[in-house]
Amino acid sequence: MRVTTIHGPGDIRLEDRPEPRITEPHQAVVKVVAACVCGSDLWPYRGENPVDVGSPIGHEAVGVVEEVGAEVRDFAPGDFVVVPFVHCDNTCPHCRVGATSACVNQGFTNGGQGEYFLVHQADGSLVKTDGMPDEALVPSLLTLSDVMATGWHAAVSAGVRPGSTAVVVGDGAVGLCGVLAARELGAERVVAMSRHEPRQKVAEQFGATDIVAERGEEGEQRILELTDGIGADAVLECVGTNGAMRTAFKVARPGSTVGFVGVPHGVELPVRQMFGKNVGLAGGMAPVRTYLPDLLERVVSGRIDPGLVFDATMPLDEVAEAYRAMDERRAIKVLLRP
Amino acid sequence: MRVTTIHGPGDIRLEDRPEPRITEPHQAVVKVVAACVCGSDLWPYRGENPVDVGSPIGHEAVGVVEEVGAEVRDFAPGDFVVVPFVHCDNTCPHCRVGATSACVNQGFTNGGQGEYFLVHQADGSLVKTDGMPDEALVPSLLTLSDVMATGWHAAVSAGVRPGSTAVVVGDGAVGLCGVLAARELGAERVVAMSRHEPRQKVAEQFGATDIVAERGEEGEQRILELTDGIGADAVLECVGTNGAMRTAFKVARPGSTVGFVGVPHGVELPVRQMFGKNVGLAGGMAPVRTYLPDLLERVVSGRIDPGLVFDATMPLDEVAEAYRAMDERRAIKVLLRP
Repeated sequence: MRVTTIHGPGDIRLEDRPEPRITEPHQAVVKVVAACVCGSDLWPYRGENPVDVGSPIGHEAVGVVEEVGAEVRDFAPGDFVVVPFVHCDNTCPHCRVGATSACVNQGFTNGGQGEYFLVHQADGSLVKTDGMPDEALVPSLLTLSDVMATGWHAAVSAGVRPGSTAVVVGDGAVGLCGVLAARELGAERVVAMSRHEPRQKVAEQFGATDIVAERGEEGEQRILELTDGIGADAVLECVGTNGAMRTAFKVARPGSTVGFVGVPHGVELPVRQMFGKNVGLAGGMAPVRTYLPDLLERVVSGRIDPGLVFDATMPLDEVAEAYRAMDERRAIKVLLRP
Repeated sequence: MRVTTIHGPGDIRLEDRPEPRITEPHQAVVKVVAACVCGSDLWPYRGENPVDVGSPIGHEAVGVVEEVGAEVRDFAPGDFVVVPFVHCDNTCPHCRVGATSACVNQGFTNGGQGEYFLVHQADGSLVKTDGMPDEALVPSLLTLSDVMATGWHAAVSAGVRPGSTAVVVGDGAVGLCGVLAARELGAERVVAMSRHEPRQKVAEQFGATDIVAERGEEGEQRILELTDGIGADAVLECVGTNGAMRTAFKVARPGSTVGFVGVPHGVELPVRQMFGKNVGLAGGMAPVRTYLPDLLERVVSGRIDPGLVFDATMPLDEVAEAYRAMDERRAIKVLLRP
């Protein structure tokens, strides 16, 4: 089968590899219907994370169950499933309180940018649709495997409530989904920090009420002006850099929380400022499975359309170009079809 | 009047200074009935914070209103008042959402270890008792000016709920009050980390169900054993050192929150661990005024007796000895009588 592999910074290849085989009875093999490139895939692509040379890559996918292990009860070949990028048994003590991304039997989608991949703890991890979904729904369903659930986690972690003023730092696909999540959770005002016109447009489609194009101190100043010097009730940090985190804490009002979902790279948290302002930090790797039933319902009912984050679709054969397009910010997010 | 001043590390003096005078109409002068030494006073005393040579010190006090400014409406000379160490107007946008320690008209008690001191924003800051309180209540009322409210803030920030397992890192007076707060908020199990027998005793009086005397990795290991490897539902960090913070994050279960109230000294937050485990951090300088009405009711009704943290009472003249006793851990907390 064909699967995307990474060999070094900038070196993405589509290779032939053996199809995955079930080795434990809780696993399933999923045949990919749609996959995509994640902002976090760009860290190794840009040489900012170490690369395991030749390893399969890709963790966002939806597809059809191809085969299940002997212990899998709730899924059968032919089921259309959303696969959370982090797999879980959904029964362990962490899962029971919703911390499914810290499951004691944690696993990950690996090689999702391919034709088939293995799901661990299939019964706990997978969520299926009611029959085969309409083709038009596939992009939105695909976002539920990571990016939309991650934006949702940012908003939940930041404590967005009805009437909140929320600020979203980062206009990648996660940040844009954060805008949508904040609106769904009732935020009255959502400020999207975005310099790029196509992203500003999606932010507005997702319900952003204000766009701040300035960055750094200028952007922080602008947000303080927009909030009468008070700051935001909730801040979603959707980048993972020190600069983004700095901005997040600057614009957060005293007593509020920064919800963070960008994998931290070189971040030093301003602990004295957090103490003095009583601004908390919450979030981390999104417990996708926890949010899935609710998000699936919102997508299937047509209430939200997070698939709008995909501004390009390419055949899997062009995966290297998909990475380039995202790296060069020519695309917000590229959907891949095997 | 006599007031305590600090002149350098280890150099505490009782000096004669002019009585404070009202310079703005929102102020009041309070005559001290009881004051005390705070753990945070020990930072400059130990040379770990810079010292403003000769400056008055002390921020925890209760007393009787001596004089009020022209704009003060709700208080009059003779009122017995609890004075939050951080003053606030209780009407600004931050105060309105409970973040009273970040009031735009913020002030601080200064020279509380003396005979008289000035309160800013008296109407917003002060809370009075119904007539003169029983002498036996004075120690508990005194704790409401900082230490009990700060322990409460740790528990609230950590998200302690009915049924929670809470761990309290730090057995200073704040940590002990954190134990009491966690129980009041419904924690079923409260683990106090304490090596010192007199403090262990108070922790137990305050409702600790388990005592862990080990520190560092050994203590962390012990708590993981006590919680079946899961970790605590809520962790109260009541010290402010890097070691205490490290322990707090180690024993916090995924998805939980560390509530921190120890003024951070040399703390580096483990942002990658926070991300991976989804453990948040919340807290900071306690919004004492926000909690005061509730805490006052709990004290006056006899429901809680946080005054037990005082294991020594000294006349103000012996304030230097009070500092020594706390510095050398001969006393948990010393109450001072002018």
